[in-house]
Amino acid sequence: MNRYEALANTMAAEIRSGSLAVGARMPSLRQVIAQHGVSQSTAFRAYYLLEEWGLIRAQERSGYYVAPGAAVRDMREASAKRALAESAKVDISELVFSVLEAAKHTGVVPLGSAFPSPMLFPLQRLAKSLAQTSRTMNPWSTVVDLPPGNEALRQQIALRYLGMGLSQPLDEIVVTNGALEALNLCLMAVTRPGDVVAVESPGFYAALQAIERLDLRAVEIPVDPQTGLDLDALAQALEKQPIRACWFMTNYQNPTGATMPLDRKKALVELLARHDVPLIEDDVYGELHFQADYPLPAIAFDRKGLVMHCSSFSKTLAPGYRIGWAAAGRFAEKVQRLKLMTTLSASIPVQAGIADYLQHGGYDRHLRKLRTALRAQLDAMNLALRRAMPKGVTWTMPSGGYFVWLALPEHVDALTLHRQAIEHGVSLAPGPIFSASRNFRNCVRLNFGHPWNADIDRAIHVLGELITQAAQTPQR
Amino acid sequence: MNRYEALANTMAAEIRSGSLAVGARMPSLRQVIAQHGVSQSTAFRAYYLLEEWGLIRAQERSGYYVAPGAAVRDMREASAKRALAESAKVDISELVFSVLEAAKHTGVVPLGSAFPSPMLFPLQRLAKSLAQTSRTMNPWSTVVDLPPGNEALRQQIALRYLGMGLSQPLDEIVVTNGALEALNLCLMAVTRPGDVVAVESPGFYAALQAIERLDLRAVEIPVDPQTGLDLDALAQALEKQPIRACWFMTNYQNPTGATMPLDRKKALVELLARHDVPLIEDDVYGELHFQADYPLPAIAFDRKGLVMHCSSFSKTLAPGYRIGWAAAGRFAEKVQRLKLMTTLSASIPVQAGIADYLQHGGYDRHLRKLRTALRAQLDAMNLALRRAMPKGVTWTMPSGGYFVWLALPEHVDALTLHRQAIEHGVSLAPGPIFSASRNFRNCVRLNFGHPWNADIDRAIHVLGELITQAAQTPQR
Repeated sequence: MNRYEALANTMAAEIRSGSLAVGARMPSLRQVIAQHGVSQSTAFRAYYLLEEWGLIRAQERSGYYVAPGAAVRDMREASAKRALAESAKVDISELVFSVLEAAKHTGVVPLGSAFPSPMLFPLQRLAKSLAQTSRTMNPWSTVVDLPPGNEALRQQIALRYLGMGLSQPLDEIVVTNGALEALNLCLMAVTRPGDVVAVESPGFYAALQAIERLDLRAVEIPVDPQTGLDLDALAQALEKQPIRACWFMTNYQNPTGATMPLDRKKALVELLARHDVPLIEDDVYGELHFQADYPLPAIAFDRKGLVMHCSSFSKTLAPGYRIGWAAAGRFAEKVQRLKLMTTLSASIPVQAGIADYLQHGGYDRHLRKLRTALRAQLDAMNLALRRAMPKGVTWTMPSGGYFVWLALPEHVDALTLHRQAIEHGVSLAPGPIFSASRNFRNCVRLNFGHPWNADIDRAIHVLGELITQAAQTPQR
Repeated sequence: MNRYEALANTMAAEIRSGSLAVGARMPSLRQVIAQHGVSQSTAFRAYYLLEEWGLIRAQERSGYYVAPGAAVRDMREASAKRALAESAKVDISELVFSVLEAAKHTGVVPLGSAFPSPMLFPLQRLAKSLAQTSRTMNPWSTVVDLPPGNEALRQQIALRYLGMGLSQPLDEIVVTNGALEALNLCLMAVTRPGDVVAVESPGFYAALQAIERLDLRAVEIPVDPQTGLDLDALAQALEKQPIRACWFMTNYQNPTGATMPLDRKKALVELLARHDVPLIEDDVYGELHFQADYPLPAIAFDRKGLVMHCSSFSKTLAPGYRIGWAAAGRFAEKVQRLKLMTTLSASIPVQAGIADYLQHGGYDRHLRKLRTALRAQLDAMNLALRRAMPKGVTWTMPSGGYFVWLALPEHVDALTLHRQAIEHGVSLAPGPIFSASRNFRNCVRLNFGHPWNADIDRAIHVLGELITQAAQTPQR
């Protein structure tokens, strides 16, 4: 570890322990130099890193302050304990379904939803493309467009990779029914019942459900809400466990919103290459970046064809159309065959319709609008949380996607809060559904994917009151 | 067994053994009475049964003749040997894929195809429905129409069951990406790795692939090309093996075209009910009946919610749209959850589009035209086969669907024939892909789902010549 990294880690620990509270002014660079005996350059780079991690924020002419969503202390500690835990069978589905079912009722403010608002998408323009292509569709495309899929669509997908500087061969891109199918097929392609799979903690519950369904075993690797996956923990797990595959989200991770910095993605790919372990990279939120560019996914560093990059249009363009894909490297043929065997093909007129939209519909213009809207909604959410949440509640400030991750005071139970919130017409996603070991009992995921309105504002206020009450209730 | 059934079986054996050749005149009823010492009524009912089985045909004023597609001798014998074989692990995919891949080349006459010609479907009218519904789609349907699926579509599906006199609760109908997904989800819902599943022999290769993929074990139950599944063999297998599920096609079975008579379907359901074994009923061809009515599926006799009836619009209306369903009885919730976990949802605008077509597009009118076309194509196929095939080749004459099943002389190898045919620009589906034990080496499935033309005629002629050559080659 470099000197400035060591310094940043020390200071990060102070922030997370609460010694430096949210909103507090950070020591000046001069003070840091004096106190830690480091060079100006080291101090400067350490602060730069802390800022990149989202722990501190520069305020013009007045120095650095601890950022609102900085510390999610409980989460790190809880997950660190499990880093080297034995692999475990998974039994999460019942809990996930009961939470999802409760949140499906209309009239509930959908802070627990996994989807952004459908009002944010160009559904009329898409319908035009779909109408056009289905009317002029060559009847034989019902045979020709079988997996790997519609060629025009795969070309458009390959072009988007090219836009990031990545060259993906057309025949390694397999079109699927949304990213969820891509992820599941990739997992099936590289595992057999009983195998051990590394997942994130906290992580997307669908990974846990897939592991449960396929009789696999999970090893949970802690995720830092700023920098993402704990690579040291992964390295240790790879030494001690016969890990056969990894399923990770590298950009705007669900539920924390964490994005792995580029050098960490590169290190991840190299680590897995040394162990010859495939990575299923779930990157469905990458296009929803608030910075200038798409944060390069891990597949950018892959030289062995071990990374299967999975994404879709469901979160960026066409919710409900169910078009996703896997750029599956050396596993592409296997994934394609599994697709043929399980669901045969993604809907063929829909593949053609989306290809047409990508060519003529103005996808990039739409994405710019969408990102601007989501970013504004995050600001509104942050403001509302600041107003409503009692002391001791912290949350992340992701640089893309549409989820924030809250750590509540340690004895507040998210499942109880979920039930109370539903009674008040508000849904949320409680922490335990993101962990095989039902951890993160005091964490919740909130969705800011809906245009801000008074209902959402009120819902945050209600949550704030419920959390305040729970926090005041004496600990058992 | 009744007396007339015993008599019919005796005579069927004579036909199948070749003692009574295809085209030969059957003994008169008077001769039968004298020869077998049975009553007139018994003789009459035996002939009626032989006719129902498709083994003989009445010709006005001149008595009965052995029907062209009567005997598929080798198949029956081969399958009988395996009736009580041990359950086995399955390894069929490689063979299936190499056959499918070879048949995918354009320019090949698609006698080996699994699909009917897309030209037979009202794709323009469908496109109109799809355009209409996607333009007027409520954005929130992307959430509301999640599994079990679009309500208008499920209502239309329920109405079609009602048309057969069957009442299927809306919430037991789960919309899927084609019947293939429905079948796979149903299988997953009722099995765990290592379980034994009964399948047909010969049978649809996707069942074998699913068993292979899910680490299940297969028991093959023989299928009679006239009456379908051998119930005695199934009853014995149920006694000797811990069968956890059955996957059977009861109407126009793939590949034989066999349809189980109603009383045998009823007996099947009762047998499985006694053993509390679920039936996954694959009924994708039921709407393609050449008689007046849809032959009632087995689910019509189900009183315990053990039958999961799977079908789709892929073979009847909308190839490539990928909309199917399972009416999954007591397993509906489990199937719905598996759907949510693996592919989330069928394409939502497409569900709405098909629902609109079913309401306003004239589905029944289209189906009548489609059935008439297929029936004419079967007649043309039969005529061409009669002209082209050498002695010793027999085939089935199904009463629906679009497959005929040929038994070639015993030492003609269907896989060799397949390779030779491909070189001549003709595909076929060789028997071994329909069996885990690679049986039916001398059988092939041909597709008559394409409007008859000179290319197809020539292709049949080519097959006839190749088979004649192979038949003349001395047996090794």
